[in-house]
Amino acid sequence: MKHFYISKSRRVRSTPFTKKIEEQGVKSYTVYNHMLLPTSFSNIDDEYLHLKKDVQIWDVSVQREIEISGKDAHQLVQLMTCRDLSKTKVGNCYYAPLVDVNGGMINDPLIYKLSDNQWRVCIADSDVLLFAKGIAGGKNLTVDIFEANIDTLAVQGPKSFDLMEEVFGNKIKNLKFFKYDYFSFDNKSFLISRSGYSKQGGFEIHVEDSNAGLSLYDYFFKIGGKYNLKPGAPNHAERIEGGLLSYGNDMLITDNPYECGFEKSVNIDANVEFLAKKSLIKIKNEGIKRRLIGIKIDIKDISNSEDKIIIHDQIVGEVRSVAYSPKFQKIIGIAMVNKEFSKNRNSFTIKIKNKKVAGEMCDLPMS
Amino acid sequence: MKHFYISKSRRVRSTPFTKKIEEQGVKSYTVYNHMLLPTSFSNIDDEYLHLKKDVQIWDVSVQREIEISGKDAHQLVQLMTCRDLSKTKVGNCYYAPLVDVNGGMINDPLIYKLSDNQWRVCIADSDVLLFAKGIAGGKNLTVDIFEANIDTLAVQGPKSFDLMEEVFGNKIKNLKFFKYDYFSFDNKSFLISRSGYSKQGGFEIHVEDSNAGLSLYDYFFKIGGKYNLKPGAPNHAERIEGGLLSYGNDMLITDNPYECGFEKSVNIDANVEFLAKKSLIKIKNEGIKRRLIGIKIDIKDISNSEDKIIIHDQIVGEVRSVAYSPKFQKIIGIAMVNKEFSKNRNSFTIKIKNKKVAGEMCDLPMS
Repeated sequence: MKHFYISKSRRVRSTPFTKKIEEQGVKSYTVYNHMLLPTSFSNIDDEYLHLKKDVQIWDVSVQREIEISGKDAHQLVQLMTCRDLSKTKVGNCYYAPLVDVNGGMINDPLIYKLSDNQWRVCIADSDVLLFAKGIAGGKNLTVDIFEANIDTLAVQGPKSFDLMEEVFGNKIKNLKFFKYDYFSFDNKSFLISRSGYSKQGGFEIHVEDSNAGLSLYDYFFKIGGKYNLKPGAPNHAERIEGGLLSYGNDMLITDNPYECGFEKSVNIDANVEFLAKKSLIKIKNEGIKRRLIGIKIDIKDISNSEDKIIIHDQIVGEVRSVAYSPKFQKIIGIAMVNKEFSKNRNSFTIKIKNKKVAGEMCDLPMS
Repeated sequence: MKHFYISKSRRVRSTPFTKKIEEQGVKSYTVYNHMLLPTSFSNIDDEYLHLKKDVQIWDVSVQREIEISGKDAHQLVQLMTCRDLSKTKVGNCYYAPLVDVNGGMINDPLIYKLSDNQWRVCIADSDVLLFAKGIAGGKNLTVDIFEANIDTLAVQGPKSFDLMEEVFGNKIKNLKFFKYDYFSFDNKSFLISRSGYSKQGGFEIHVEDSNAGLSLYDYFFKIGGKYNLKPGAPNHAERIEGGLLSYGNDMLITDNPYECGFEKSVNIDANVEFLAKKSLIKIKNEGIKRRLIGIKIDIKDISNSEDKIIIHDQIVGEVRSVAYSPKFQKIIGIAMVNKEFSKNRNSFTIKIKNKKVAGEMCDLPMS
């Protein structure tokens, strides 16, 4: 595969950690929420194995946080998502599909409730800020909406717990999955959640004071040797195995949350108002025709993910994400497949560079 | 400056022309509206000189087109922009600031009126789709809003007129600036506007049928030799000289349209309703404190655009865009500068890599 350079500009923002990460040898970037997201430092398979064994720090500042505060904040956040937020609690994070009036996926953020009048929507790659501003403007809501000046470091991998304990103290090991709390380092307080875009365990540190964040970053690498700490990045093979979806890759505005497997978060029976309610009731009543599912393909290399899945000479699905999995020693992926075929976990063939290759459908997460 | 690779994925979309452009030797990309935008093929100064002398074709499919149709389409488009659209005509393009309820810049699209019930908003780099969907959802408007399946080729440069005449016939030379019409090639009709992100003259071809677009692309290069046609990309030095602003570089949501120099398109006295009206009246009454302006800096190379402008040891502005101009043989740029200084076109000093360098403010476009 040919490689191309990325052109930097002010429009494609750097993060407070970009300079350090470049000194540490980052090789490639993607752009996510108008910002640089590191994608690799060395060999992607080595990084996969290291993530599963040790611990990595990722600059995921691209997970921008849209803060919504004011009298109507709860109402606005609820209007955007089909997940019932009426019983939500401060101190929790909520993974919630944002859905438009037609039932199309807008984003799949983690929502942090700081108080009933203050929420942070920690977003995937689309301008949720503009969706929120549009609704608030249209409904004349009393809210402040802005992208918070927060940059996130993810600490991911099985040794993240010991590393974080050494830095933030014993208490951090009691933080439960999808909870957050405040922890101190060097007299600075950080909001830290037990979360992250891997299935290897870990935390996300929400840095509001860049200088404090840079000191923390340096300290991690000062003491990190005994944990074999390395800089890293979200790993596609690991996240596909774990069934973690990627907005823009696996799901788009033309997909609805039922098709994406979010049934449990589509609370059409709850006594709350959200934009997509009418459409989602209709979609549920009619039944969906396709569904995201895992796939494994009997090859070791693939150049793109625009391939179609064929069963009995009929196109029954399209590939959305692919990566080589060192665990399964083949290409794995996520595909949107006609429901009758996805239900039975059919085997299939897929045309790659004009050659037919065998594949099979599987559950997400993969086992 | 160190170079980094770009990681491709489905989320960062290719265009129908990506494959051809890679065969033609594109070297680098940026990401714009979740899509690949080529940035260079050879040497950026050579490309600048070629654009001013001959003709280039640019794959600017990233200028995504948000189509808004239905009974309330005109109302919705007007709600988003402070420009009075009440006297707009079919066949015209309108450069219009989109502004949020606080007066902050959301985007600066070219708006195409196809009929009173059908508009296309040809956007800079932010998800206007979500802003429009939010407003429509909040106000319960009867509209269809979607990103049209349209990919744009820009034909730019002084020889674009002769090249386009050879392909589309004599009639295209009568198309006036910021007008559009339909023209045929090989029995396929294309919507073509006299527009583009350069000051060298040219057209934008809005391709709805990818296969027809690919045939057209090949034909251009088949006959283009006599015009010295080359593939190209928007050129920062050329567009800065010409005073063409870049959303995300020169202006952000924290800037208002008065600060960006869009006074003529801020029609607060018009009898039309738009979200930003109240805020913009207030901003006008209070007067703005800073303004975008051109700058020239007495060096030939610059590594980033995060520098501050200093006059009498006081920070009076920030640099937004910079590029080396072969015409002025120095760095030129666009900066947001405190109004009292910008008014007088002051000279200034700027700290670059801890060295003070002299600079001067100038009008946009530059002369």
